[in-house]
Amino acid sequence: MTDVVIAGIGQTPVGEHWEISLRDLALDAIQAAHKDSGGIKPQALFVGNMLAPNLSNQAHLGALIADYAGLTGIEAVTVEAAGASGGAALRQGYLAIASGMVDVALVVGVEKFTDKIGAEVDEAIATASDSDFEAVQGLTATAQAALLMKRYMHENNVPNDGFANFALTAHANGVANKNAMFQKAIKLETYHKAEMVSDPINMFDVAPNADGAAALVLTRRDLLPSDWKSPLVKIAGSAASSDTLALHDRKDMLYFDTCQLSAGRAMKQVGLTLDKIDFFEYHDAFSIYAALSLEAVGFAIKGKGWKLAVDNEISLKGKIPCATMGGMKARGFPGGAAGVYQAVEAVNQLRGQAGANQIAGATYGLIQSLGGPASTAVSHVLQRLD
Amino acid sequence: MTDVVIAGIGQTPVGEHWEISLRDLALDAIQAAHKDSGGIKPQALFVGNMLAPNLSNQAHLGALIADYAGLTGIEAVTVEAAGASGGAALRQGYLAIASGMVDVALVVGVEKFTDKIGAEVDEAIATASDSDFEAVQGLTATAQAALLMKRYMHENNVPNDGFANFALTAHANGVANKNAMFQKAIKLETYHKAEMVSDPINMFDVAPNADGAAALVLTRRDLLPSDWKSPLVKIAGSAASSDTLALHDRKDMLYFDTCQLSAGRAMKQVGLTLDKIDFFEYHDAFSIYAALSLEAVGFAIKGKGWKLAVDNEISLKGKIPCATMGGMKARGFPGGAAGVYQAVEAVNQLRGQAGANQIAGATYGLIQSLGGPASTAVSHVLQRLD
Repeated sequence: MTDVVIAGIGQTPVGEHWEISLRDLALDAIQAAHKDSGGIKPQALFVGNMLAPNLSNQAHLGALIADYAGLTGIEAVTVEAAGASGGAALRQGYLAIASGMVDVALVVGVEKFTDKIGAEVDEAIATASDSDFEAVQGLTATAQAALLMKRYMHENNVPNDGFANFALTAHANGVANKNAMFQKAIKLETYHKAEMVSDPINMFDVAPNADGAAALVLTRRDLLPSDWKSPLVKIAGSAASSDTLALHDRKDMLYFDTCQLSAGRAMKQVGLTLDKIDFFEYHDAFSIYAALSLEAVGFAIKGKGWKLAVDNEISLKGKIPCATMGGMKARGFPGGAAGVYQAVEAVNQLRGQAGANQIAGATYGLIQSLGGPASTAVSHVLQRLD
Repeated sequence: MTDVVIAGIGQTPVGEHWEISLRDLALDAIQAAHKDSGGIKPQALFVGNMLAPNLSNQAHLGALIADYAGLTGIEAVTVEAAGASGGAALRQGYLAIASGMVDVALVVGVEKFTDKIGAEVDEAIATASDSDFEAVQGLTATAQAALLMKRYMHENNVPNDGFANFALTAHANGVANKNAMFQKAIKLETYHKAEMVSDPINMFDVAPNADGAAALVLTRRDLLPSDWKSPLVKIAGSAASSDTLALHDRKDMLYFDTCQLSAGRAMKQVGLTLDKIDFFEYHDAFSIYAALSLEAVGFAIKGKGWKLAVDNEISLKGKIPCATMGGMKARGFPGGAAGVYQAVEAVNQLRGQAGANQIAGATYGLIQSLGGPASTAVSHVLQRLD
């Protein structure tokens, strides 16, 4: 099979865009990616979105966005896997190119939280959990993550601020990201003083829901001119896995099976060992997710993911840099767009265009997009081709 | 590329299943398809669903259904394109197999309307239309189709009962389909007496929303044992296209561009002319859609699709049999499952297992799944391999 490459990237700033509609957000990201690709015309559009049917009373985003972007006639579809919708849309775009049936695919992740406020947003997010067995009891996504975190702290003797460095690292990395929602570093003292959201999750253990859109242009390497601007970025590995929505159905709720399975499959496709991965964009919607992801993927042994943060090994100069552009914590969590933001940021790292946050000589990046507490995980290995 | 084949099919009866949950409907169809395939284990699940986030407060169906079907760990995703979600899920499954990355894919379409009633259902369906410009004005899907039908009748001098045979044919074909919601033939007199829903659409010009699930097992031909039960059915053509959601944005609202584009692309892949198509499963959510689909695909010239019905050419013994198992009108319209039902019914025809409704010697079937007024169209050509 020929290489599937990312020939264009685009993103909007992440934040509360009260005045910008969902379709306009998507358009901004698409136009940026289109321009970055040198104007390649796509034949297919894959939209990653999580909540528009509930938050914006708008489904059928494939046709809607294709039309709005001036692409009427191309094939277009929405891909949904809760918080992993962005990663899943990237995976469908990848499969379409790999099939040989589509030459150029546009992947756009878009989320517009600010079409609703307050409890309506929590209710919408709860559709990602098991409606009949969890949401119906009033369990929100944050409360569910709090249960996980509490258990994790109990099992592994983690002190109250054992997770602080996940937030501190993300916020430190967000400073130089002009698209980040929060471009301000925080101190341990700030973490200590932070308001509790759902014990033990404080304000800095949960990523902010935010509006945003990011886009990718995918194509086959052999379709690009030989003098294409380098370095080009290849999708070297792509895999996904699913698990129960409800935590009570799992054998071990403190092990994210899907993180292991999807990353393992993607790494196997590349023929890589983890030590070759230069950075890891994990799905830090909650700091407990970050810790559990590090463990399941294999960067830490079980129960010790938080230690990587404590030891500063996830910082830009650490053993495995994570959330290199601020992650979901500081860049913001734009729902179904989050997985596409990860890819855009990883491409910037691999092109050597990550500015102050550049990982020197980055060749391989692992990105992982989660839906719910890793009920879905989609993993991609991106590789710089010189 | 090796042939992509349909190795297993399953369906539940279509109707008002007040007592069966969405996940149980999906499970029933999956188990039937799994059994029909001889027990091949899938690696990927593509769920076609239109409204569960609104009607059942449940998104993230990929992981939910994979788990419930005992397939925890496989990759799983929801594919949405309004009423074309079923066709779109089939297309994603096809692309996954064609890519060589997935050996066996399960495609399930599922819809559960009866989790809500009345205006809440209309509101949910309206998410498939342009929320900011059409739905916000109070335009429902049925009212939108009524505008189309009225205009069509005016432009083409169609008498009041010019559409009657779409319903009569569908209901005649539903009689022998034990999974159909309505298994009763109707007379022209019944059509004449029918209550008006949204002038000029009467009770028999609109398909009933209904619960149901249908499933397909897709794989590569070379992975099946050489003594596989014949005839095997191949996906010979697959294509999709998109158009504006809002009718006011179209150059000619009485021509379904996407029906033409997607069917044309799929037919070109097979290298077929329309006269070789033995039956056409159109998307008759409204009888006006059926007429416009016949025209755009090319079975009738513009403005004359309704004449094919009047002349009985869409009946089982006509020039182009349509809705051969009752179509959406009599089998029922299970939203995002509808496109998968079409595929299941087409496979039955091509296997020669359509009983009283069998099209003798059927070799090629064209199926077409629409979202909104053909804002999305997904077309597949299925072929019997002897």
